[in-house]
Amino acid sequence: MTFAATVLTLYPEMFPGPLGVSLAGRAREEGKWSLATVQIRDFAIDKHRTVDDTPAGGGAGMVLRADVLAAAIDHARSLSPNAPVIAMTPRGKPLTQARVRELAAGPGVTALCGRFEGFDERIFAGRQVEEVSIGDIVLSGGEPAALMLLDACIRLLPGVMGAPSSGSEESFENGLLEYPHYTRPAAWEGRTIPEVLRSGDHAKIAAWRKQQAEIDTRLRRPDLWERHEGARVLSASGARREKKD
Amino acid sequence: MTFAATVLTLYPEMFPGPLGVSLAGRAREEGKWSLATVQIRDFAIDKHRTVDDTPAGGGAGMVLRADVLAAAIDHARSLSPNAPVIAMTPRGKPLTQARVRELAAGPGVTALCGRFEGFDERIFAGRQVEEVSIGDIVLSGGEPAALMLLDACIRLLPGVMGAPSSGSEESFENGLLEYPHYTRPAAWEGRTIPEVLRSGDHAKIAAWRKQQAEIDTRLRRPDLWERHEGARVLSASGARREKKD
Repeated sequence: MTFAATVLTLYPEMFPGPLGVSLAGRAREEGKWSLATVQIRDFAIDKHRTVDDTPAGGGAGMVLRADVLAAAIDHARSLSPNAPVIAMTPRGKPLTQARVRELAAGPGVTALCGRFEGFDERIFAGRQVEEVSIGDIVLSGGEPAALMLLDACIRLLPGVMGAPSSGSEESFENGLLEYPHYTRPAAWEGRTIPEVLRSGDHAKIAAWRKQQAEIDTRLRRPDLWERHEGARVLSASGARREKKD
Repeated sequence: MTFAATVLTLYPEMFPGPLGVSLAGRAREEGKWSLATVQIRDFAIDKHRTVDDTPAGGGAGMVLRADVLAAAIDHARSLSPNAPVIAMTPRGKPLTQARVRELAAGPGVTALCGRFEGFDERIFAGRQVEEVSIGDIVLSGGEPAALMLLDACIRLLPGVMGAPSSGSEESFENGLLEYPHYTRPAAWEGRTIPEVLRSGDHAKIAAWRKQQAEIDTRLRRPDLWERHEGARVLSASGARREKKD
C-alpha cells in the first residue's frame, strides 16, 4: 500500500525538497509513498486570492482565514479521506516517535503548513485538525517541520530502510536515548574505542550499551528519564497503563 | 554582517531546498545570510571515498568515521572560523528558542548532518561539536533538522521579518505558548470570534491573551508550565538565575 503524503501550503515548490533524494527519494520512485501538494491560495474566495487577514483584537502579523483553510482541507480529504490532518504549529502537542510509528502504519498524513502569525484557531475544532509541534522553536512557516514529519514516517515504511533492525534500536524507541557509536579506526588522535566493544563478548557489549543509554538519558534528558522510570516502576508493580486508542 | 550558514552533509543537493524560496530565499538574495555546503565524502581518505564503517561491537547500520568527519569540520572551520559547529542528533540537547536567538545574533552556524546509525562518538569531544536535537523523533538523516535550525535562525536576522514585533510575542519567547489567533470572518460555520477581541479595549484584550497563553501552556505543555512557574517564583523571591555565558 502506498503511504499518501499530502501537504497544504502556500509554497508547494518547497516539496519534495530534501525528500526527493536519497532514501526518501528512492522510496518514492518505488511507489512506497506518494506526494500531493495543495496550494492553499487556490481556495481563496475573493478575486485577489487573499488567504489571510489582520488578527482580531490587533497585533502584528497576519492570520490564515478559517474559511479558506477549511476549503483547502476539504479538498485534501477528498484526495486522501483516511489520512489524519496535522497542523504544524508551536502550540501543538510535541511529536513523539510513538506517534510517528502510528502514522507510518496508517494510510498517510495530510500536513497543514502555516505562515505569518498562524491559523485562525477555529479551524482545529471545525475540521478535526491535530495540532503538532516539532521542537520548541519558531519557524517562518510549517514547511520545514512538515519535511521532518514526513521524513520520520517514510523511513519506517516497509522496505524503505535496509536493515529492519535499524528501526527499533534507535533513540526514543524504548524511552531512552540510543547508546553511543564507534567505528574504525580503533585509535584516533589518541582517543580509543571503549575496550568492551572490542571484546567480542556479546552479553557484555549489550550490558554496556544498555548502561550507557541509561547514563546518557539521565544526564542529558532528565525529562525522558523520569518518564522512563515512571513507566518501569508502573510495569514492575503490575499496574497497567491505559493505552490511548 | 552576513550570517554564514555552512552545512556538512552527504547530500549537498538538499540545500538550500525550502530555504531558497519565500522569506529565507529573499533574505539570501539580499545578502542577509550566505550558504556553503561541504560534501563530507570529499574528505574520505581511501580511493573508494568511504565515509562510514560497521559499528564497533556489532549491530545494524553504519557509523560515520571520526577521522573523515574531523577533516570535513576542519575545512568548514577554515571557511567560517567563529561559527559554532552543531551536530544534528537525537542524542543531543533539545534546541530551544533561546539558543536559536543566541545563534542568530552570532556569526553563523555550521550544521553537521549524519546519516546511517550516526557519528563516531569521539568526534564531539575531539572537535568541540555541540550535539543538538530537534524533537524526539528519528530521521533518515540530519538534513531536515538542519533546515529547521537554519530557518529558525534566519527569520530572526535583522531586516528579515516585516514587523519587528513578530519576533518577540511568539510561542516560547516568554516561556509560554502563544495565545490563540482569530481573524475575519467574525462568524464561520456557527463559530464566532471571542467577544473580548472585538471590544476595542486594549487592556482587556492583553489580559485575555495572557490568560489564554497561560491556560493553554498549563493544559498542553505541563513541562513548559512547570519551568515557567519555577522561573517566576525565583524571580519574585529576588533570587537571581545564573546567566550562562
